[in-house]
Amino acid sequence: MTAEVLQRLFMTIQSRRNADPQASYTAKLFSRGTQRIAQKVGEEAVETVIAAVSKDREHVISESADLLYHLCVLWADAGVCPDDVFHTLEQREGVSGIAEKQARPKE
Amino acid sequence: MTAEVLQRLFMTIQSRRNADPQASYTAKLFSRGTQRIAQKVGEEAVETVIAAVSKDREHVISESADLLYHLCVLWADAGVCPDDVFHTLEQREGVSGIAEKQARPKE
Amino acid sequence: MTAEVLQRLFMTIQSRRNADPQASYTAKLFSRGTQRIAQKVGEEAVETVIAAVSKDREHVISESADLLYHLCVLWADAGVCPDDVFHTLEQREGVSGIAEKQARPKE
Amino acid sequence: MTAEVLQRLFMTIQSRRNADPQASYTAKLFSRGTQRIAQKVGEEAVETVIAAVSKDREHVISESADLLYHLCVLWADAGVCPDDVFHTLEQREGVSGIAEKQARPKE
Repeated sequence: MTAEVLQRLFMTIQSRRNADPQASYTAKLFSRGTQRIAQKVGEEAVETVIAAVSKDREHVISESADLLYHLCVLWADAGVCPDDVFHTLEQREGVSGIAEKQARPKE
Repeated sequence: MTAEVLQRLFMTIQSRRNADPQASYTAKLFSRGTQRIAQKVGEEAVETVIAAVSKDREHVISESADLLYHLCVLWADAGVCPDDVFHTLEQREGVSGIAEKQARPKE
Repeated sequence: MTAEVLQRLFMTIQSRRNADPQASYTAKLFSRGTQRIAQKVGEEAVETVIAAVSKDREHVISESADLLYHLCVLWADAGVCPDDVFHTLEQREGVSGIAEKQARPKE
Repeated sequence: MTAEVLQRLFMTIQSRRNADPQASYTAKLFSRGTQRIAQKVGEEAVETVIAAVSKDREHVISESADLLYHLCVLWADAGVCPDDVFHTLEQREGVSGIAEKQARPKE
């Protein structure tokens, strides 16, 4: 069932990490290093933003999928697993929106 | 269990959509409109990128959570549900990385 | 002398606008349309951000040049000329920083 | 005259670098450090992208001004001066577009 797709995607990404960079896009990305992986996350986010502002629903879906894929690669590269992020989301979920935002240690 | 957290988060976001913008950060975001929601996705992606390049694992986790939260708001605003994106990811998952990238209708 | 380089760059870009997209990268960008031009500005900004955070001075310079080039294409596409932007900057320049920021009609 | 506005802006920024962060937005930005400065460049770029895609000419102008201001702060923080970037742009300017793009040491 679809709910665990991010965790399955993450495991697939981890399993390809040391594959042949010529044969696997994922292995190629890891071989390029953190800066290149982060750059791809930024680029896919920009494309998702443009799709949303253009009211292009189909591209919102496909660019969001690209963004989530590259975000999982970024997590793997950073030693983060999906549960680390999900746990943070769950801790916030109970909190009401405005309160939650104020609770974040941000500008 | 944590696997369905994005879908639960999405449902929480939908349930707050018409709440009082004074009381709910989520309702306030929806009231600001698509451009503002997309802007927040872009901003959180930039912060995730900076955390990754800075090798700041804790910020990678918290900024990724912020990014996923705002991405779910963007999906709700665009009439997209998590399963639409997960389905796209699943269709690609079986495909090997390089082939998958070449199959995407992108530059 | 170097001071007017952005205006000369802008004029060069305008002159290539209707050139053969096969022969001119600038003409090719215009032919791809506003979304693609905006996407390139976003991508070059992400690369500039990564170079800065990585304390990579040489890449800050080259990525900033890429960013300014694509920003000039975006201006031309939007019917904006450099003087429109420079005029806005000059109006703010006299204002002290904090006051200026507060004067901006932004969140 | 307006042509030198980026260089004058840069000098103004440099002169405020060690001002009181309470009184000067520029001094406050420098005191926050490289990550925060880079983040602001990313944010203003996202806003410029959204204005362009939304065909909102007035916001393209004002967000581009914000972007150039924060880019000058990023340069000052990185030990880069406008002439370093302008010199790179001038070296490329003579080169035809497609050739120039191919000459860049990028993916």
